Amino acid sequence: MSELIHQFGRNLRYFRLRAGMSQEELAQKAGLHRTYVGSVERGERNISLINIARLAGALDIEPEELLRRVTGSNEGSL
Amino acid sequence: MSELIHQFGRNLRYFRLRAGMSQEELAQKAGLHRTYVGSVERGERNISLINIARLAGALDIEPEELLRRVTGSNEGSL
Repeated sequence: MSELIHQFGRNLRYFRLRAGMSQEELAQKAGLHRTYVGSVERGERNISLINIARLAGALDIEPEELLRRVTGSNEGSL
Repeated sequence: MSELIHQFGRNLRYFRLRAGMSQEELAQKAGLHRTYVGSVERGERNISLINIARLAGALDIEPEELLRRVTGSNEGSL
């Protein structure tokens, strides 16, 4: 079950870096706290749909992209 | 923000009916309560990743499929 949480965190980090944003910039744009974004990226949060929508909106991607098992995040660093 | 919650509910109902399962059968297989599954389908719940993973596993689909904006659920009834 927690595998999806970790996958989500890796995907979030991948798309954030691809957008050239810091955790703080993403957090501000999404209306969330920087430490919250950090904990989501580390797979420590059972994030819910509303915050998934906020992060996807801030990254200009579809929410479903953050749940995919295979993204560039599986290829290592950018 | 709540649009994703309603989309999720429509998608869940679509995939559950496609699998020929009742809300009670899906709930039992996912380890959730029937009334919870019903409220998710009605777009009343800000469901989180762990329960998304449980429902996707019970339906034998990828979690991301439950977040898609366009599914058969947009085509009306089955």
